[in-house]
Amino acid sequence: MLTFYYAPGTCALATHLALEYAEAPYDTVRLDFKQQQQRSAEYLRVNPKGRVPALVTDRGTLTETPALLQFIAESFPQAKLAPLDDPFLLGKVNEFNSYLCSTVHVNHAHKGRGTRWVEADDESSLAAMKKKVPQTMADAFDLIEKQMLQGPWVLGERFSTADLYLFTIAGWLEGDQVDVKRFPKVADHMQRMNAQPQVQKVLVAHQA
Amino acid sequence: MLTFYYAPGTCALATHLALEYAEAPYDTVRLDFKQQQQRSAEYLRVNPKGRVPALVTDRGTLTETPALLQFIAESFPQAKLAPLDDPFLLGKVNEFNSYLCSTVHVNHAHKGRGTRWVEADDESSLAAMKKKVPQTMADAFDLIEKQMLQGPWVLGERFSTADLYLFTIAGWLEGDQVDVKRFPKVADHMQRMNAQPQVQKVLVAHQA
Repeated sequence: MLTFYYAPGTCALATHLALEYAEAPYDTVRLDFKQQQQRSAEYLRVNPKGRVPALVTDRGTLTETPALLQFIAESFPQAKLAPLDDPFLLGKVNEFNSYLCSTVHVNHAHKGRGTRWVEADDESSLAAMKKKVPQTMADAFDLIEKQMLQGPWVLGERFSTADLYLFTIAGWLEGDQVDVKRFPKVADHMQRMNAQPQVQKVLVAHQA
Repeated sequence: MLTFYYAPGTCALATHLALEYAEAPYDTVRLDFKQQQQRSAEYLRVNPKGRVPALVTDRGTLTETPALLQFIAESFPQAKLAPLDDPFLLGKVNEFNSYLCSTVHVNHAHKGRGTRWVEADDESSLAAMKKKVPQTMADAFDLIEKQMLQGPWVLGERFSTADLYLFTIAGWLEGDQVDVKRFPKVADHMQRMNAQPQVQKVLVAHQA
């Protein structure tokens, strides 16, 4: 059995979707970030980073979205969530997921998590970071639209974990004041994803 | 044949080391960041992100360090650069590499690349970001020392791509005003890596 720790509104949605698509046996533990549950002594024993997602397996805990997505794809190969038999195509999935975690998620985090990089009382710098988020997110999605998302899925006709992760991060655009309609392939991708029963099931849990 | 694009002093060192450890057949193209060669029209056709590393294969170009490290490990399995037969252990490698790219490299980038997240003429915010880098890098390496690096290698006795990437990022600590001696396991890891002939060979190319 797997135990999955998540919080609504976070990138943990991507891993949650992967577990659902994989039809993996898993329990969930929902953390309340408003109550800072991710910083509780109990949770820090699960994940010393104090972040989500975290997946507790019978061999230990795994964190970091790209690692979790590949672990789930490999552990439940019948779900065909990654091109495990093709190093180059798998490389394209990992390239996409790595860009989302190291560039796009980081851009977004400058809106609400700026104290990671400047002092907490530096309101001027925090505001400056926040102000540029609509531009950095739009620039990133411009690259995704024109260069990275083949359509209808990230890899073209083949569905993969990159689609779960893209859907997760694209869901932040509206809150970041970026109109997804500027990116027709991304907008179409969001609609397709929203139409899938696994997505609807997990979104209900996150929105409850 | 593979063609590898890199620049000295960047995270491309990790992928360069992987190619060398894998005994892969590859050519190199060295970019001069001082002359902004990564922004040239010629290079943007190779990698529209305008960054390094990039690896041109006979099926197309791959970017992003974690993706490249796994691609090389899978393409040259005899080099045993990743536990490809063990999804959990491979997950630990990917977790480590993902943390380096999405958190530690990003912390470091706030010293010299702050204009990614605030306006280029906002000297006050750029200085505020730069000022916190020694703390954020030390915090990250404290977690690596205490929780993530088993020693002597990241996975314990088993060498992997995580060691190449850790060596690359740990090499930035001195310039970020963090004394690596605060982290005995990391310092020992750097010494072991520096003693390896593949590392010496690649460092000579980067320092030339």
